[in-house]
Amino acid sequence: MNILLSNDDGIYAEGLKVLAENLRKEGNQVYVVAPNKERSGTGHGITIHRPLQVEEAFSDGKHFGYSVDGKPSDCVKLGYWGLFKDIKFDLVVSGINKGANLGNDVFYSGTVSAAAEGALLGIKAIAISLVCEKGNLFFSTAANFLVNFIKNIDKMEFPENSLLNINVPNIREDELKGFKYTIQGDRKYIDNFEERRDPRGNRYYWLNGEMTEKNVNPLYDSNAVNDKYVSISPLRLNLTDFEFFEKLNK
Amino acid sequence: MNILLSNDDGIYAEGLKVLAENLRKEGNQVYVVAPNKERSGTGHGITIHRPLQVEEAFSDGKHFGYSVDGKPSDCVKLGYWGLFKDIKFDLVVSGINKGANLGNDVFYSGTVSAAAEGALLGIKAIAISLVCEKGNLFFSTAANFLVNFIKNIDKMEFPENSLLNINVPNIREDELKGFKYTIQGDRKYIDNFEERRDPRGNRYYWLNGEMTEKNVNPLYDSNAVNDKYVSISPLRLNLTDFEFFEKLNK
Repeated sequence: MNILLSNDDGIYAEGLKVLAENLRKEGNQVYVVAPNKERSGTGHGITIHRPLQVEEAFSDGKHFGYSVDGKPSDCVKLGYWGLFKDIKFDLVVSGINKGANLGNDVFYSGTVSAAAEGALLGIKAIAISLVCEKGNLFFSTAANFLVNFIKNIDKMEFPENSLLNINVPNIREDELKGFKYTIQGDRKYIDNFEERRDPRGNRYYWLNGEMTEKNVNPLYDSNAVNDKYVSISPLRLNLTDFEFFEKLNK
Repeated sequence: MNILLSNDDGIYAEGLKVLAENLRKEGNQVYVVAPNKERSGTGHGITIHRPLQVEEAFSDGKHFGYSVDGKPSDCVKLGYWGLFKDIKFDLVVSGINKGANLGNDVFYSGTVSAAAEGALLGIKAIAISLVCEKGNLFFSTAANFLVNFIKNIDKMEFPENSLLNINVPNIREDELKGFKYTIQGDRKYIDNFEERRDPRGNRYYWLNGEMTEKNVNPLYDSNAVNDKYVSISPLRLNLTDFEFFEKLNK
């Protein structure tokens, strides 16, 4: 398979490296285009007022991919329309993100947005994240899951403009109980802005969001992860609220 | 009404000024928090790795609002959780954007994302854009439309996590035929990256998207605007593709 691989943690992130290696080991052609530095929280931003600079990136002395001074969505656009415009991609993968993309995270996530860009380009697309904070990170659990999951992806039909958002618990592979298809949960943030003064007396604010979730629905993405399952949520990139639309028209 | 007003064209953009003036003239309390410079195309990005600096902004010698060195979503978060945390907002408005937010634009749009942030906070939220390029801009057409539209907004029920995305044709008010509730259309971009070399021989790429749309569905947002109607699309911030979810589970 021809796979366009990106992320939002940057070209030298461990999650990207582990995933690229595992995908290549299985005989896939993996084309890496990723931001030159961490770009978490950039959402579906793109760069329109300046050009994008591109550098070849190496790993262990070998070509690894391309590094771009832009955002995750820029990378996918540039890979598809520019750097590899003659390649027919079977799949766009974004990740492995260091940290969850559950519930409302999907709106802010550069990881999900890179996959979303793939879906908007009409390619099957997957975002994959490791639900972790600090400490021991089991990227290989997520990488192995993905490598196996996509083996039958040519038989899966993706609706137009839809993608899969995968979240993997940060545990050893033999502790995983399997996977569940889930729906976007209700994880959100109570934001607290801490006001400080700089040495010249000017106010500035640090965002310090506190995560909350109620998990009232057993189908929610977070519940699967809490129960040691991989969560796979199908997301749709048509925002129309059809119920609201019907109601407004009455 | 207490209105939190933001945009993505920046605190000194004409569209924001015209809208703030018109809303204030009607007796609304308008709290302006906007980026300190143009932030088009930033999508739903937020700033997490550095603090946000805030300055008071003036217009004609009077307090106008606050300028933030962040993105549109940062502004709404900071207004709600920080600067005006004691205010109970009835409405979040983002705009008037200089340029359309139709079809796939909504994913990249800072304007829509600021409104989306409001919806995620549980406040009624509206993004408003003038469908224009350059030349003579009729911001007052859009401002007057919005001022009238929101007069009955306390009677309108917004579903949880939904917002209204309004696009106004760039014509004189007396040329407007009215408004239509619409659905997100199929406007998208064929991107062309122009490769250049800097004076030191390094490659760089300019994004140059060409807009395409088929407008096959009469309900599409663009069709209303083309027919000289204001387009009002209800957007839903739950991305779950429930049909795909059902299919995957089979």
